[in-house]
Amino acid sequence: MRNKRIGKRTMKMQNSPTIISTASIVGPKEGKGPLKDKFDVILSDDLYGEKTWELAESKMIQTALETAVQKVEKQLDDIEFLFGGDLINQIFPASFAARALGIPFCGIYGACSTMALGMCLSSIVVDGGFADYALNGTSSHYCTAERQFRFPLELGNQKPMTAQWTVTGAGSALISSSGEGPKVKYITIGKVVDKGIEDGNNMGAAMAPAAVDTIYSYFEDTKDDPKSFDLIATGDLGQLGKKITADLLRQRGIDIFDVYTDCGLEIFDLEQQDVHCGGSGCGCSATVFASYIYPKLVNKEFKKVMLVSTGALLSPTSTLQKQTIPCIAHAVVIESE
Amino acid sequence: MRNKRIGKRTMKMQNSPTIISTASIVGPKEGKGPLKDKFDVILSDDLYGEKTWELAESKMIQTALETAVQKVEKQLDDIEFLFGGDLINQIFPASFAARALGIPFCGIYGACSTMALGMCLSSIVVDGGFADYALNGTSSHYCTAERQFRFPLELGNQKPMTAQWTVTGAGSALISSSGEGPKVKYITIGKVVDKGIEDGNNMGAAMAPAAVDTIYSYFEDTKDDPKSFDLIATGDLGQLGKKITADLLRQRGIDIFDVYTDCGLEIFDLEQQDVHCGGSGCGCSATVFASYIYPKLVNKEFKKVMLVSTGALLSPTSTLQKQTIPCIAHAVVIESE
Repeated sequence: MRNKRIGKRTMKMQNSPTIISTASIVGPKEGKGPLKDKFDVILSDDLYGEKTWELAESKMIQTALETAVQKVEKQLDDIEFLFGGDLINQIFPASFAARALGIPFCGIYGACSTMALGMCLSSIVVDGGFADYALNGTSSHYCTAERQFRFPLELGNQKPMTAQWTVTGAGSALISSSGEGPKVKYITIGKVVDKGIEDGNNMGAAMAPAAVDTIYSYFEDTKDDPKSFDLIATGDLGQLGKKITADLLRQRGIDIFDVYTDCGLEIFDLEQQDVHCGGSGCGCSATVFASYIYPKLVNKEFKKVMLVSTGALLSPTSTLQKQTIPCIAHAVVIESE
Repeated sequence: MRNKRIGKRTMKMQNSPTIISTASIVGPKEGKGPLKDKFDVILSDDLYGEKTWELAESKMIQTALETAVQKVEKQLDDIEFLFGGDLINQIFPASFAARALGIPFCGIYGACSTMALGMCLSSIVVDGGFADYALNGTSSHYCTAERQFRFPLELGNQKPMTAQWTVTGAGSALISSSGEGPKVKYITIGKVVDKGIEDGNNMGAAMAPAAVDTIYSYFEDTKDDPKSFDLIATGDLGQLGKKITADLLRQRGIDIFDVYTDCGLEIFDLEQQDVHCGGSGCGCSATVFASYIYPKLVNKEFKKVMLVSTGALLSPTSTLQKQTIPCIAHAVVIESE
């Protein structure tokens, strides 16, 4: 069959899956950053009325998912698939949100690549005729991530300058077989890439080779021209990972410098907000896509965008067992029409 | 579009995704159970030559995936999608296996429902024309699950009689757009169901309502007849959960008693092996499907089977925060031809 595969691993959509809606919700720090005027909801505190940060994160992803559906006046009952996940053990926030929403649920885990992974799978079920509406979303929370992956916040631990700041936020996208909006044209599913980095405080460098692998594969498969893009946005490589990615791609003959950004540099002001190398977390590319990139696709300021969310597939257990950090990146190419 | 949806949430495959191969690998205890003659590999110890149980689990899923591909003399490079996951935080075993295999990887999390979830998504990408070959697999390990979800093994903790025994094992399935083998006919994606059970040692009762919801939905959507099945196999409800499921379905007018089993009752001898209510874990339905159910579909002893893997989406954190247990079940209907 292979009629949707171009080259080795890029899939061409044939039935124009359309992103009809997105939504974003962020914490107070993100709400003071450069995108402060673009989010749907900015929380005044990190707990969102809940007793724990994990329950707050779950409520955030639930809000992001519900808001995307409400914006286009659909009902939850209209949605055939929900793809969701997050960084937390057993994807507790996404699972609990799925319970509240009652949509058939496929739990996914791609660490911070989850937004693009969910968009890839949503596009597949819509393009393949399995759904008229597929919803995806993901979240991260500075406080849940820090205490799970690093140290108790109460410790006041300092971080090296290569570290990034986990975004407190959730974003979602609703993809449909009909309706108005930018279309998903291509997806490229990532392979796990591990260049031997062990330092959990240098995720940008760890993830950059995975981003390079996926972006390079897309261009190799499609023979597309980087210059045809208005924006290529990686997920959360931060300042250091972004530079590594652009340099490595240039070495392989793909020059994306002019159109390249990283969502971790868009969401925070690195000069003012003390976030070291920039933002990270599933919520980083999710909220930047939902609040900043998507509206510009809708109003045709951007005609063609690649979103490449990047994930580090480590666990605290794998780190304690002295393993290196496997990483992955998934790409979605979207065009306004 | 909706041309593949029957009723509310069941999808009818139109291009006969074919299960061309499966593989299974289990630990020593499982290798002494009723299915001992059917597994591809039985380990002589729980460590499989690795230094930690988590690395052993990762090697087990890797072996299961590779073996399924080797059996039909394909190359890893032929496979377009890998869907994998497990119970361990950040799906460490599956992610590390995906790194070794180099196949484009979609990480999934459905707790013990992962085998059926992976088969559903593999069927979708094949049926939708996105792949000629999609591979899925999952694993669990008694020692990794106990220390993550319950207590250190060294504690020698006793369990109540409602508890189940996590299977040490991994199973896989390779689904193709062509070739010989049983065909996936329908899939029903689960919703998250939570009837308020808090006891992590009574997973069968917690998960039964999710199994009921999915099985009932399939029959409601398709108007199919339970009597047309040779086997309906839930994932890992154990003795108690199985009884609850059959009773609740009968109350709703669906009688599956004559064709119903649970994989947790097939893999262990409950009289002899001291496993309380039976087997559990992602590896339970995965290895029972790969070793016992699939060969009987191939030789046409079974003409029509429903596999309903069941998962409890709790985390140790959600339990400490006094939350109840959200559960899910995904169904795959397979026919030999």
